[in-house]
This record gives sequence, structure tokens and C-alpha cells, in this order.
Amino acid sequence: MNETIETILNHRSIRKFKDVKISDEQLDLILSSAQQASTSSYMMAYSIIGVTDEEKKAQLAEITGQAYVKNNSHLLIFCADLYRHTLQASEEQYEQMLANLENSEHFLVSAIDAALAAQNAALAAESMDLGICYIGSIRNQLDKVDEILSLPKHVLPLFGMVIGVPDHQPDKKPRLETKAIYFENEYNQDQKDELQAFDKEIAAYYQSRKTNTRSDSWTDQMLRRFTNPMRMDVTGIVKKKGFNKQ
Amino acid sequence: MNETIETILNHRSIRKFKDVKISDEQLDLILSSAQQASTSSYMMAYSIIGVTDEEKKAQLAEITGQAYVKNNSHLLIFCADLYRHTLQASEEQYEQMLANLENSEHFLVSAIDAALAAQNAALAAESMDLGICYIGSIRNQLDKVDEILSLPKHVLPLFGMVIGVPDHQPDKKPRLETKAIYFENEYNQDQKDELQAFDKEIAAYYQSRKTNTRSDSWTDQMLRRFTNPMRMDVTGIVKKKGFNKQ
Repeated sequence: MNETIETILNHRSIRKFKDVKISDEQLDLILSSAQQASTSSYMMAYSIIGVTDEEKKAQLAEITGQAYVKNNSHLLIFCADLYRHTLQASEEQYEQMLANLENSEHFLVSAIDAALAAQNAALAAESMDLGICYIGSIRNQLDKVDEILSLPKHVLPLFGMVIGVPDHQPDKKPRLETKAIYFENEYNQDQKDELQAFDKEIAAYYQSRKTNTRSDSWTDQMLRRFTNPMRMDVTGIVKKKGFNKQ
Repeated sequence: MNETIETILNHRSIRKFKDVKISDEQLDLILSSAQQASTSSYMMAYSIIGVTDEEKKAQLAEITGQAYVKNNSHLLIFCADLYRHTLQASEEQYEQMLANLENSEHFLVSAIDAALAAQNAALAAESMDLGICYIGSIRNQLDKVDEILSLPKHVLPLFGMVIGVPDHQPDKKPRLETKAIYFENEYNQDQKDELQAFDKEIAAYYQSRKTNTRSDSWTDQMLRRFTNPMRMDVTGIVKKKGFNKQ
């Protein structure tokens, strides 16, 4: 097994960091890595905001409810970005572009572009013995995050990533068996056995792990999550920002 | 610079492969790597279909208009998947789940989960000297792809990835300057200088590259792309599959 795959397989989300800044050189490598990811039809339809202002970090920590959004070495916010594609357009061209810019196809393209770039950034950081955690909870109050970062129309915050020198070593979290997520030639709807086996495994994991021990299964977690409507306002905010409208 | 970052920075999309199968061990490492990616709230909201059936590959090559969708060592289709989360739900719970399953928040979650997994798969492959290319053009006829792979409701094909032993070494494609995609604390709307500089660079690149030489700039490419409505049917198909409805 090579170093890259070792880095990939060693991933765990880090939520506690030492009080050490990452170097400019490390940040440069993380950003260059993000940029070298594949991008749909060369669109590079994302931007990254590095948040260093302590006041803004405190606001974002409050929105997300996660102290490590403030307490880390670097905080990145990944955004879908179809703004720069319109910058050199005439008024007439701009009007013509809207059907594409604001459809679901390009909402997908920009979200996927941003995620591919983010995962390269994550692995670059982890390969330098830094830890990372994705922050989906910026979508708790997407309109406020949008305002804090002064994003124009056609730029939408999607998720954050905290980076720093790890100050804990959490257990690796189990994943579904490969045969429950990978299928040959056609989808297999009959996954109940795999899910039941995984529920047993994850119940044992929650019982045995070093911190935050609890009694739970994956299915129960998912039932709780999905039966309680959450972030129902994302739909409207996304549209207001000029994405996913048609 | 470490091996992982070298692998990341060396990326180029490969569209011509030697007639060599990847080994089962390589495929296992690619899939394990995909699975170890971060996942929003442990949802693992994606599935991967490996297409080995020659007839299906031929159909997908026709849909995408790309011969290398047929001529490769392995073809993966990455799907957003919120199906398995409903499998153990009672009828009443299922009804309750729909508000979440079918909102834009969970459309985003599943697309991002799939993309993070895919980028891990891509890097695992590239670290073993395999080449990859993402295939967005399955969205040319998303309903047909959906049918070919027999996907149930709440499973949506997003993009493909071809993998194999490279039979060409294309030039590395330039990226926007980092200062055009990375901003500190707030978005910088004034990107015209960076875009003009990049247009000059990319015009020179298209003139000088080994194959497919042409006269073009990034801005012109984007203007052409966005002024011609494309894949406008994706919106409706996504909703029909039970995503992004509310």
C-alpha cells in the first residue's frame, strides 16, 4: 500500500487542535492541491474563503454550534461560484446566461467542483500530519454566513473545513460494508442484511469507543435525522442566491 | 513535498487507456478509499455502480458521446443515494422522512458525499499509476442512465469515472491563479485583471499544446457554454427521482 492510500485510509475527523498556526507554505500546498482537482468542463465553479478574522470566526462558531470552528489553525469556507463566469459578459449575454447559471445542472456542477477541490485540500493537509473536519453546519443559517463573507449573487457557501495540528486521536469510524455501497451493473435494492449487520457493528463501536460512548445504531440515527425536518430554509436561500431556480 | 501532494498536483484527465484490466486488489483499494472519505452526519449518502457489462458500456458511451466511456479498464457511476436510509422505516416514518429526503439540503448532502468519495477514489487510482477521467456527460440523458442502472427512487446518477492504465500523457491544464479563487475573510468581486491574465495564459496554452491545438480563451469558452442552454431537463429528472423537490 502506498503513502497516498495510507493517508486516505487513515482519515478521521479532528475536532480539537493544538494552538499552532499552519505555515504559509502549508496553506499554499493545500490551496494548490484544491485547485488541481478535476473540474467540470474547465468551469472551476467554486471559491474558497479563508476566515482569519477572529470576530467572523466567533460568529461562524455560534451559527454552527461548534467551538472548533473558532479554535483551529485555519478555517476554509467552500462556495459554489458561477459569478466569475459572467464578469466579462455584455448585458445581453448575461441575460442569455441565466437559464444555464440558474438551473439544477449548474447547481450540481458547482457543488461537485467545490467538493472535489475540498477533498484534495483535505488530503493535502492530512498528508502533512494536519487534521481536518468538514463543517456542514454552516448551513444552519446560510443567509447569515452569506452576509458575513459578503458573497455576491451566484456565489453560495456550501460547507466549511477546519484545519490544524491534531490534539486528539479519535477512533476510526466504521463504514458500511463495500457490498452495501458498490454494485455491479445494476442497483441492488435488497440491502437489509447488510444494514442489520452494520447496525450491530456500529452499536458495538458506540459502546466501546474511547469518548462519547452511547447506545445507538446507524438505522436509528438515520431515522431520527430524517424524521425531523431540518434546514428546510436552504431551498429558498439557494434560489435567492441565483442557484437551482429552474 | 510528499508523495500524496505530488500525486494530487500531477493530475491530468486520461482519455485513452491501454487494453489492460485493473486487478481486483486495485479495485478494492479504490473502493475502500472512496468509503473512507468524510460523510455528512455519517449519512454515507451515495452509491457506486461499477459497469462491466459491455452492452451497458456501449449504451453509456453513446449517451456521453465519449468512446473512452466504453474503452477503459473500469467504469464507475457515482450516485446520490438516500434510498437505504428509508429501508428500515415504517410506512408512517417514511412519510415523515420525505420532507428531509426530498429537500435541497439533502440533495446537496448527497451530491457532496458522492463527490468526496469520488475524489478519494480518483487519487487512490492515480497513486497506483492509473489514470482517471470524470464523466459529467452522463447527464446528457440522465433518465436513460437511470434506467440502464435500474436505480430506485431516491438514487440519482451524478457523474461517472473511467479508470485504466494511461496510454497518453496529456499536458497539465493550467488553473486560475490562486488569488482568483481564494479570498481572505470576504469575497473580492474585482477579478477582471486575474481573468484577463488567465485568458492570455490559456490562449498560449491552447496554441502550444501537443494535441488539439486551437485559438480560444477561458472567458470565451465560458461565454459559449453559458449562453447555450444545456441539460435543462436535469431539473425535472432530479425531482422525478425524489430529490430537490422542496
